[in-house]
Amino acid sequence: MTAEKMIIEIKDWIREAADFIQTSLTTDFAVSQKSGRTDLVTSIDEETQTLLIKKIKEHYPADKILAEEKGYSTIDSLAGRVWIIDPIDGTMNFVMEQENFCIMIAVFEDGIGKLGFIYDVMKDELCWGGKGIGVFLGEQRLIQPKNLGLSAGLLGMNAYMFGEDIHCARKIGHASMGVRVSGCAGIEMIAMLKGNHIGYVSNLSPWDYAAGIVLLEEFHFSYSTIEGKALSFSGREYFLAATPEAYSEIKTNFLDK
Amino acid sequence: MTAEKMIIEIKDWIREAADFIQTSLTTDFAVSQKSGRTDLVTSIDEETQTLLIKKIKEHYPADKILAEEKGYSTIDSLAGRVWIIDPIDGTMNFVMEQENFCIMIAVFEDGIGKLGFIYDVMKDELCWGGKGIGVFLGEQRLIQPKNLGLSAGLLGMNAYMFGEDIHCARKIGHASMGVRVSGCAGIEMIAMLKGNHIGYVSNLSPWDYAAGIVLLEEFHFSYSTIEGKALSFSGREYFLAATPEAYSEIKTNFLDK
Repeated sequence: MTAEKMIIEIKDWIREAADFIQTSLTTDFAVSQKSGRTDLVTSIDEETQTLLIKKIKEHYPADKILAEEKGYSTIDSLAGRVWIIDPIDGTMNFVMEQENFCIMIAVFEDGIGKLGFIYDVMKDELCWGGKGIGVFLGEQRLIQPKNLGLSAGLLGMNAYMFGEDIHCARKIGHASMGVRVSGCAGIEMIAMLKGNHIGYVSNLSPWDYAAGIVLLEEFHFSYSTIEGKALSFSGREYFLAATPEAYSEIKTNFLDK
Repeated sequence: MTAEKMIIEIKDWIREAADFIQTSLTTDFAVSQKSGRTDLVTSIDEETQTLLIKKIKEHYPADKILAEEKGYSTIDSLAGRVWIIDPIDGTMNFVMEQENFCIMIAVFEDGIGKLGFIYDVMKDELCWGGKGIGVFLGEQRLIQPKNLGLSAGLLGMNAYMFGEDIHCARKIGHASMGVRVSGCAGIEMIAMLKGNHIGYVSNLSPWDYAAGIVLLEEFHFSYSTIEGKALSFSGREYFLAATPEAYSEIKTNFLDK
């Protein structure tokens, strides 16, 4: 089985999922709270996940799946081939704005990121690629962003961490050219991959970062938990990704002090 | 002279200015600092302003002009007809992201907002309208957003005010469903007018808010300086706009205490 075949399939599934989401947006749908009043899930998140899981199980029945919504949110290990999916990344934006949300799919093999897809549905912007393949925006191959320092670029940010200065997030933000808060990890990943932002500080689950780090890796960005450890693919973790130069400055000037 | 004629003209000018900006983006252009390292202006800001001012002077030679870049940034009074323009709102985004910036034009007569135009250039999204005319997104008439309370929606936010809790901005943000930081007043105005955000807290100059408040007024949003005073159209001021319900809650629960 070739990566090319898999890429074509995944793009088809994303298109089908996006069509489903856009059609569903015009109907009434159920919104409920998960961990609290600002952590939402909708029936469309769940149905989109079901659609994507059905595709994976049909085509790759032996593979494992890690996904945001119910029944798929933990995995015993990353051994073998693992699909990591977020049917709607940025559910709050989806509910409140009906835009600025993404579908994300990653394929890992024995812990190594092979393919990543981030689709900003309403902007119709697909960022995808993988190990040894490069990074693309639609049909266009992206150029690896410049290795800019912290003071030379904009920084994607989790608002709560910035507000409360968790892990020096506010000080780090003030040292950049400015912070941006989109409420969607996929949008922040795309912003880095395009070279629009130099980094991203947030609090993420595996399905929030899996597709992104496959693509960041291809462009030699640095990423880890904010403590500098390898991401665990288990539960929510404080996340830091940046150009190597900005990452090093953030570690040295703020986090290792 | 009818408003219809003026609307057609202004839309044409905005289209021409946007074409100029998009062409200029593919060339090298000069970036310089204004008040500090995060306050930028480019040669394209200045040339776009020159283009728009030329149009106004050709068609409406007796009118007054208030605009962001050099020579036009103050005005003696709002008497008569005044054009208030921001050639590129969100210059930092323009430089760093090459997207998420707006062209904004407002027409005031004796201090009353008559017409407002906000054009998100790269998204190709024009929000426009005016007093007694309604608010439109492209050709589509927008519906007045619901009068939601603070805890029921997303809040556009100035990152510095949020980080430093200026005028309780951080506490206000935490009481909402979440804050978003786009770095572009025009994008925040459009988000309110679409009903995507319930309010906006920032630090703005007249050209940042003029077009927006004409349209907010038409939809009965509340707006003022954050101290509750009328906007002065002179210099930078802390700015608050929100649905009447959210505005009232913000005043009562945070600002009047």
